[in-house]
Amino acid sequence: MSSSYGNNLKVQVFGQSHSPAIGVVIDGFPSGMKVDMEFLSSFMVRRAPGQNLSTPRKEADDVEFLSGLNENGETCGAPICAIIKNTNVRSKDYSNLAITPRPSHSDYTSLIKYGESRDIRGGGQFSGRLTAPLCIAGALCLQYLKTNGVKIGAHISSVLNVLDDAYDLVSDEIPDNVSDFSCINEEKASQMKAVIESARMACDSVGGTIECKITGVREGIGDPMFDGVENRLAQIMFGIPAVKGFEVGAGFDVAKRYGSENNDPLCVVDGKVKTVTNNAGGINGGITNSMPIVFKVAFKPTPSIAKSQQSVNLSEMKEATLEIKGRHDPCIVVRAVPVVEACAAIAILDMML
Amino acid sequence: MSSSYGNNLKVQVFGQSHSPAIGVVIDGFPSGMKVDMEFLSSFMVRRAPGQNLSTPRKEADDVEFLSGLNENGETCGAPICAIIKNTNVRSKDYSNLAITPRPSHSDYTSLIKYGESRDIRGGGQFSGRLTAPLCIAGALCLQYLKTNGVKIGAHISSVLNVLDDAYDLVSDEIPDNVSDFSCINEEKASQMKAVIESARMACDSVGGTIECKITGVREGIGDPMFDGVENRLAQIMFGIPAVKGFEVGAGFDVAKRYGSENNDPLCVVDGKVKTVTNNAGGINGGITNSMPIVFKVAFKPTPSIAKSQQSVNLSEMKEATLEIKGRHDPCIVVRAVPVVEACAAIAILDMML
Amino acid sequence: MSSSYGNNLKVQVFGQSHSPAIGVVIDGFPSGMKVDMEFLSSFMVRRAPGQNLSTPRKEADDVEFLSGLNENGETCGAPICAIIKNTNVRSKDYSNLAITPRPSHSDYTSLIKYGESRDIRGGGQFSGRLTAPLCIAGALCLQYLKTNGVKIGAHISSVLNVLDDAYDLVSDEIPDNVSDFSCINEEKASQMKAVIESARMACDSVGGTIECKITGVREGIGDPMFDGVENRLAQIMFGIPAVKGFEVGAGFDVAKRYGSENNDPLCVVDGKVKTVTNNAGGINGGITNSMPIVFKVAFKPTPSIAKSQQSVNLSEMKEATLEIKGRHDPCIVVRAVPVVEACAAIAILDMML
Amino acid sequence: MSSSYGNNLKVQVFGQSHSPAIGVVIDGFPSGMKVDMEFLSSFMVRRAPGQNLSTPRKEADDVEFLSGLNENGETCGAPICAIIKNTNVRSKDYSNLAITPRPSHSDYTSLIKYGESRDIRGGGQFSGRLTAPLCIAGALCLQYLKTNGVKIGAHISSVLNVLDDAYDLVSDEIPDNVSDFSCINEEKASQMKAVIESARMACDSVGGTIECKITGVREGIGDPMFDGVENRLAQIMFGIPAVKGFEVGAGFDVAKRYGSENNDPLCVVDGKVKTVTNNAGGINGGITNSMPIVFKVAFKPTPSIAKSQQSVNLSEMKEATLEIKGRHDPCIVVRAVPVVEACAAIAILDMML
Repeated sequence: MSSSYGNNLKVQVFGQSHSPAIGVVIDGFPSGMKVDMEFLSSFMVRRAPGQNLSTPRKEADDVEFLSGLNENGETCGAPICAIIKNTNVRSKDYSNLAITPRPSHSDYTSLIKYGESRDIRGGGQFSGRLTAPLCIAGALCLQYLKTNGVKIGAHISSVLNVLDDAYDLVSDEIPDNVSDFSCINEEKASQMKAVIESARMACDSVGGTIECKITGVREGIGDPMFDGVENRLAQIMFGIPAVKGFEVGAGFDVAKRYGSENNDPLCVVDGKVKTVTNNAGGINGGITNSMPIVFKVAFKPTPSIAKSQQSVNLSEMKEATLEIKGRHDPCIVVRAVPVVEACAAIAILDMML
Repeated sequence: MSSSYGNNLKVQVFGQSHSPAIGVVIDGFPSGMKVDMEFLSSFMVRRAPGQNLSTPRKEADDVEFLSGLNENGETCGAPICAIIKNTNVRSKDYSNLAITPRPSHSDYTSLIKYGESRDIRGGGQFSGRLTAPLCIAGALCLQYLKTNGVKIGAHISSVLNVLDDAYDLVSDEIPDNVSDFSCINEEKASQMKAVIESARMACDSVGGTIECKITGVREGIGDPMFDGVENRLAQIMFGIPAVKGFEVGAGFDVAKRYGSENNDPLCVVDGKVKTVTNNAGGINGGITNSMPIVFKVAFKPTPSIAKSQQSVNLSEMKEATLEIKGRHDPCIVVRAVPVVEACAAIAILDMML
Repeated sequence: MSSSYGNNLKVQVFGQSHSPAIGVVIDGFPSGMKVDMEFLSSFMVRRAPGQNLSTPRKEADDVEFLSGLNENGETCGAPICAIIKNTNVRSKDYSNLAITPRPSHSDYTSLIKYGESRDIRGGGQFSGRLTAPLCIAGALCLQYLKTNGVKIGAHISSVLNVLDDAYDLVSDEIPDNVSDFSCINEEKASQMKAVIESARMACDSVGGTIECKITGVREGIGDPMFDGVENRLAQIMFGIPAVKGFEVGAGFDVAKRYGSENNDPLCVVDGKVKTVTNNAGGINGGITNSMPIVFKVAFKPTPSIAKSQQSVNLSEMKEATLEIKGRHDPCIVVRAVPVVEACAAIAILDMML
Repeated sequence: MSSSYGNNLKVQVFGQSHSPAIGVVIDGFPSGMKVDMEFLSSFMVRRAPGQNLSTPRKEADDVEFLSGLNENGETCGAPICAIIKNTNVRSKDYSNLAITPRPSHSDYTSLIKYGESRDIRGGGQFSGRLTAPLCIAGALCLQYLKTNGVKIGAHISSVLNVLDDAYDLVSDEIPDNVSDFSCINEEKASQMKAVIESARMACDSVGGTIECKITGVREGIGDPMFDGVENRLAQIMFGIPAVKGFEVGAGFDVAKRYGSENNDPLCVVDGKVKTVTNNAGGINGGITNSMPIVFKVAFKPTPSIAKSQQSVNLSEMKEATLEIKGRHDPCIVVRAVPVVEACAAIAILDMML
């Protein structure tokens, strides 16, 4: 099993890179929301390829609703199924990877797990393309959350050694990103672009981190131990391909601190209990405390690079050199920003319902 | 809901710090394993308080099996229930925390979630003491896994700014810890102890990280997207109180790398497909690839410190100074090492069954 | 939430009677099975409308696979999504039911649950049409089970007061149904048809029962208490619209028996433990015992009848007479036979995996 | 896996007939309810053995709470664990059943499933004694439901061929049972007792049915398809040992009816939508419609009878005569009445939360 998330809001993703369609079923979504198709389209565009710095594969990513809406385009309580048809697929690009798997990719493990029948074309069900259905589900959740006072924003907090400004952990503001790139600081955006462009020229790729901030979530959401807000966020974030780390609030930095530094003093603001700092990232004991929820996710550099690499020829069981052709992002982080927002929205709405 | 984990092996933790007992029900454990009571006891001792550097509260942590074993002490297929009676509880220590919650603790969020009826004594269900039942479940899983060729080890990889030697990500060896402290490097152990002792003297606490390594897991374990090995490990690790970060393989470091650096070249070793490096931490696409599974967890410094802190008096809704009495660990990481091993064992066995 | 079933094989149904499509996602289906499209089509035809005695609405029920198959038409381990497009929908037929709900239908309860936004067209998500996706999933499971030695058959055991011959509870044979109707006994089939036809002429409908037999399931399948084979079968069978009763083995008859009559004496057949009788229906303590699994399901008469009925005008909150127009089955049991087989196959495969 | 039920309220049963204790963990129970220990005790007594017509094994069935309550005996939001210690166990009674399994019992299937290590003493985890923990959970749920206006009652609707009066499906009243036996009609109670007594004298047992009625559940509870109220009730009712049938409302009788007879005409009562009849048993499309929920459960005669029976000697793999010694109920239905009420309460509260 695999591709299903949620307790009160069930999100079931399906599709392979080159199957007739990819899509998602969302079961448990509240009834009565008129889907804002314009918002959905603009959200999908943020993830879509063919943009600045990303793979040239041109996909329309047009969302079709098969179910879950009534004749007025409102959610009706029935499971929502939405799909994107796969067009512009070039299956021949990937034929050799069945014998010589890409390093740090699922090519080999999918063979072990599913056998020769697995769909290797374009990465099959492991393709980054499967984040598009997550974005459909996320966009619906974001729309619903927004009308309930919850805002979610994310930015590229780092690419290689270039760091964007960090979010203020305490304030309820989420600063806008610069116009054409998911950064707060325009200068850092330019530097990141340069790093990515130079990686592309070198037939290589680069990693990075994404920081996400959620405001307006009422206190008392989440459950102790295994169903805390951080557990649930971590579980869904590792569902995004290439994620290798997740931290909440001050994250790994807490390990280098004294308690007296790291504890968030309580205070009263406008008659409400708040904290002076927010190293906890808005969560105590798995439960929201009304401060912003802030977390960070680490993405590895795309494993599919044009540089020649050492692999293994599985039919001959000996080492072999691999040259990957085809279209690949030099930095998956750029397109992953809306995916992080989408996954955060799914997790938060699931816990709020 | 809250305290239940697992798909094929269901682990349900129960208890509060000062309830008559704490315990765990394990449903789905394989039938026919004679429980090694000596191993279980020695494992429990590693987590127990009253040891080197930890809180002086003296608890026997004697495990009693209420169900799940037959008359020969073998698992019989029925749900296993094991408990530890709570003795030596001093409830009066905690009475004032209901009005003046501890910063960075669940005192306030538990009030919001459960109301005045919540059990605040000793941290209630949020107490670190609840990791003892996790250790019972984990010890049973470790025993079962060991007989199936799976080994799990963990060490304190850092305390404040002192770093232990790191695990070799590629080798199948798990080095032993030094005799009285969960470190590989004896000198680093001494330095860590000194840091912790000086924090205690300063009425403060310190954070740290734990690294865990799992070998012998067959390839093909785990599922794509939301049920990958890293998702499942992350979900359970954030169930340990005070965890604020989780990373697998090279973790957050991948964000600073080029793909050509980070990719793990494939190779053939003894007729089997392996990787030359192991930045992936043994997992590709959520699925094990036969390399060691390695991950790291960040623990914040214990929030309960003797130093006076700023809090809020909830009855008067104004800021107040809090002085915590009672017995607290200056560094929870020391006792958390077996808990990390236990949780890893539970997650891995759940995925293997 | 609602429309998802299964632990190891997750079946998520979606669609409304008049949404663009209806369909199903099947997650966890074994990799490597070449889908027998001919068998699938012929199975779908058994449920399809426009046949003998059923509603004249003509639907092609052509199944389209959106995902889960590789380029050779084999299951590839990825979630399978299959849909049927809704064509030939006449939405205007149902407009008045929003104000004057049909007795014994979901028209009123769906309003309460989902509000005015619910999709009432053609029964929305409560339509019997949603059993078509169940049949897709069931057909795949049946094909897989067949190659693993498991056979599933069902017949109309009664319509009104006409009883078909009963299945032999002990034998491993499943007798064929007569050619054009799901009955064992041709004469009984004729009588049932007459009863149904006369109900149609009277603008009325009739209920009935379906008996199902499963052979070849290995012993030891199922779990005690809540996940026994009978629990799991009951849960899915009540998912078929109009089901009001479920019984296994001798069923309700056991209540009228002495233990000495009802107990199934053990015996040895060909070196295997069997039972002389099979009042247990193949299940002891929730676990299969190698005897045939036999159960019966009761269907109420279709609530949508042309006869005028007493209802309530919800805008005026006073009683009103309802005359339903449109196309309705006089006996849903006829088309429900493959649905029962499909659901049995889903439940059994889920437990076997 | 096995012994866990529920989505929002998780009930995990544990224990074997002769393990140190049996018990239950209830996760998700609302915080703030002062447990009525007197009600709990009196409810447990209704199920306890050693009463009128039941097995002479004398068990106190004293409930001990290990967790989940605060110092004032109120539920505190933490998982509730409650146990009953097993005393008065005579393990030697059951030694021979490992070789010669009881017909229509789990003796053989538990061997297949769990191997030689299974706990056969007293039926192990399959013992009817495991319904005691269900009653603990049920009693808590009943108390909570009562304060929220929901009432649940059950009676023995039949034993062998003696029928008690039936519940009125429409009225909100639940008639009391006669003082010492769970029947509405005193005369029928006497007749049932006579039937049971004569079965006991004949070293035999008898089956029966239990009818249960639930009032006060608000409309709109339950979900379509697999999580309807009837699906959820059926799933838990088949968790009670010896249950072989479940029907809701008019149940199997609907199969013998015309739609015009079976449909429940809608009407307006005190400004609310109700139905004139209640053949639906309070459920349309899986969702409550505000009418009483009524269902019936069929129990087989206890398989453990003193009469000699044909079984198989598993070590010699040949047929053998079995004579069961020990203490057994001639009619399990008598003590199952509170168990049905308990299970109904668990299911309904799970759906209401």
